[in-house]
Amino acid sequence: MSENQTKKTKSILQAPRGTRDFYPEQMARLQWLFQLWRQTSLRHGFEEYDGPSFEHLDLYTIKSGDEIVSQLFSFEDRGGRDLALRPELTPTLARMIAVKANALPRPIKWFSIPRSCRAERPQKGRLREFFQWNIDIVGSDEVLADAECIFVALDFLRQVGLGPVLIELRVNSRFIVSTLLIDAGIDAERHGQMFAIMDKYEKLSEAEFDKYACEQGVCDTELTAVKNILRVPDLSSLESLSRSEQSRAELAKMRELKQYLDDFGVGEYFVYKPAVVRGLAYYTGIVFEIFDRSAKMRAIAGGGRYDNLISMFGGPSMPAVGFGMGDVVLMDLLDELGKAPMIPSHQPPEFFVIDADPSLFGMVLKIVGCLRGKGFAADYAPKRQAMGKQFKYATGRLAKFAIIVGDETRTQNLISVKNLQSGEQRQLNVEEFLKSPEQLSL
Amino acid sequence: MSENQTKKTKSILQAPRGTRDFYPEQMARLQWLFQLWRQTSLRHGFEEYDGPSFEHLDLYTIKSGDEIVSQLFSFEDRGGRDLALRPELTPTLARMIAVKANALPRPIKWFSIPRSCRAERPQKGRLREFFQWNIDIVGSDEVLADAECIFVALDFLRQVGLGPVLIELRVNSRFIVSTLLIDAGIDAERHGQMFAIMDKYEKLSEAEFDKYACEQGVCDTELTAVKNILRVPDLSSLESLSRSEQSRAELAKMRELKQYLDDFGVGEYFVYKPAVVRGLAYYTGIVFEIFDRSAKMRAIAGGGRYDNLISMFGGPSMPAVGFGMGDVVLMDLLDELGKAPMIPSHQPPEFFVIDADPSLFGMVLKIVGCLRGKGFAADYAPKRQAMGKQFKYATGRLAKFAIIVGDETRTQNLISVKNLQSGEQRQLNVEEFLKSPEQLSL
Repeated sequence: MSENQTKKTKSILQAPRGTRDFYPEQMARLQWLFQLWRQTSLRHGFEEYDGPSFEHLDLYTIKSGDEIVSQLFSFEDRGGRDLALRPELTPTLARMIAVKANALPRPIKWFSIPRSCRAERPQKGRLREFFQWNIDIVGSDEVLADAECIFVALDFLRQVGLGPVLIELRVNSRFIVSTLLIDAGIDAERHGQMFAIMDKYEKLSEAEFDKYACEQGVCDTELTAVKNILRVPDLSSLESLSRSEQSRAELAKMRELKQYLDDFGVGEYFVYKPAVVRGLAYYTGIVFEIFDRSAKMRAIAGGGRYDNLISMFGGPSMPAVGFGMGDVVLMDLLDELGKAPMIPSHQPPEFFVIDADPSLFGMVLKIVGCLRGKGFAADYAPKRQAMGKQFKYATGRLAKFAIIVGDETRTQNLISVKNLQSGEQRQLNVEEFLKSPEQLSL
Repeated sequence: MSENQTKKTKSILQAPRGTRDFYPEQMARLQWLFQLWRQTSLRHGFEEYDGPSFEHLDLYTIKSGDEIVSQLFSFEDRGGRDLALRPELTPTLARMIAVKANALPRPIKWFSIPRSCRAERPQKGRLREFFQWNIDIVGSDEVLADAECIFVALDFLRQVGLGPVLIELRVNSRFIVSTLLIDAGIDAERHGQMFAIMDKYEKLSEAEFDKYACEQGVCDTELTAVKNILRVPDLSSLESLSRSEQSRAELAKMRELKQYLDDFGVGEYFVYKPAVVRGLAYYTGIVFEIFDRSAKMRAIAGGGRYDNLISMFGGPSMPAVGFGMGDVVLMDLLDELGKAPMIPSHQPPEFFVIDADPSLFGMVLKIVGCLRGKGFAADYAPKRQAMGKQFKYATGRLAKFAIIVGDETRTQNLISVKNLQSGEQRQLNVEEFLKSPEQLSL
């Protein structure tokens, strides 16, 4: 091999920067997470959907925020079409619903667990490739829809041991922030930029934030006004600042949201937080983030109302609300708290078939073949070896029953069945056993 | 909106060419398939793994066949690294195992359900984006490993109703084809090209094949020799052609494979087929395809031995065998045969909570919140409406029990529970009920 080839072989031995290899041990954790996300979604009445893993580039450049567009992995197909790996699923959702809006039964309660890619600098909690649980309700402008989305997130988090002592739900309304910005003399057309700036407030120190805002052209009195909005301490103070009827109506929605969350039994997580505005361009009303309460204060999930997105894609006017929760920060947090489960990466066999002599191996395969064909997890030792070693292997695989094939199987059709937990052992006719192996488990 | 923008909006409303949108109805089918693939793999003792959805371009250009490389979606990251969407998972598997070969417990029995992309012209059964079930055993040169891989595929297919009348397992050995080619005076260095040509034999008419082979420089006596190999009718005829000891040893392996498949109870699917050589460059020994027996004769799955791939990636010498089965041809076939299942895209609720009066709605939410929190599928009508309509909605969602909240709930803590199948109804204390809702299902 030439030196150049050696170098190439070396580089290809690594997963690309910011991506992960999932060996069985890691994959078992990921599947545990996916299964919980899926089960929780389903029992809350959501249906699963998915779209392509890449879309036309325009789908993102037209409607998403600049931050996302700068992070796209884009490429051309042979026909010269511009495509991009999906950085998130919401534009796909909006496209799919815009096209079939009238044929879809309402309410549209959908979930998905897409794999997405962003070409950003990899760092702790942020990778170039990740999974994200998406929950959305489309076609309802009721606050109850916001509450349903938030409840499914909190119900999941409670299940994995993240109670209100460990995490909090931070709620705000972009609509109210907009009215306050207008009161401060900042025109509506600049609000998108303001939201992007305000979104940095909790991520930067005070001095860094001032510098950053100023660089973006928000200085002096404007900066003071923005910071006053970011520091409103609670809903009562917000009420005294909310002068218009619309603004008060929106505030009432936040109170209604809190009431629904109380009814659902997850009101304790609720915190009003004026600095939560979300980075994406398409949010319109209530926005929320779920935060780790520890010193690291990472966002575990984020979402909100995006009432205009479906119609922007040519669909009918359909209000919508949803959130995304990534796998990376969540699993980091569970690991730190010792709440990530230990899961075997294999399915422990119900039956482990052992031969007393290699000449009986064909019979082992017949029994294993029959059991697997009937839907049971069944296995045998990878090598023909002494019974003691086969038993040891069975125990190592966490098998429940050992089935021993011996001379009496050949001569009398008898097998010995040993319960590997209790040690209890008995003889059975092999055909009787194979007719209903499930009886053993009773 | 300008005309240009309108056009853009129109184009982005479609999924990219050769990709699919999975609305809940289609997603439920896909999840049904994934769950069966996963359950079957696990009960056969395989562990799940996965890699990144894109890899360094070199991973594919160095070792895979030219056909695959010409079909890559490739792109650069910001650091100028050449990357490509994975067209298949085997190079990733080889990379992952090469790196950790000594740390991995043997036998390595792994499965995965990757989403992969190929930039080929979309056609019936071949899309640009698809899912593929991958099964591999690494570290064993025993024919039993080949048999295990094939058995898990056939066990799955049998489960979905594809018996040996409908499909067949076509088996051959590249090793034997190689010895026959050498006997015909064709040097080993040209065998890769020969395999690629022979792989087309069943896909083209006789005349088309002759023309294609000739264009590739295989004419006259060579073409006759190749076609003689492609027409060997059975293993006995093959035996009379196999002169070397190695060749006979390989033939014995094919017979051993048939014996193991008989033991496992799936021998009926076995057919020797000299035209099966597989398109990919890395196969070394036994190769196989599972074919639809109908007139359309589509390949449902394909695989074989690739004993040199791990060491090519700098790992130790580790023999390996595996296969891939895509979702597209399989689901097409099941649809044509009427064997694809009808699955509701939502989880039918165990409990559906109904209010006798909108003023009781808060109590509905409390009960639903409590039930979902305990892991039950619970739901309620999306609108506050008459009880009759709520019952109708409950039935439409295939709910099992209706929980009716009325005045007596407020005054006496009593709810009515109605079994929606039997019509049986009784009153319960709401707190007693919520303590153990599962008792109702008994």
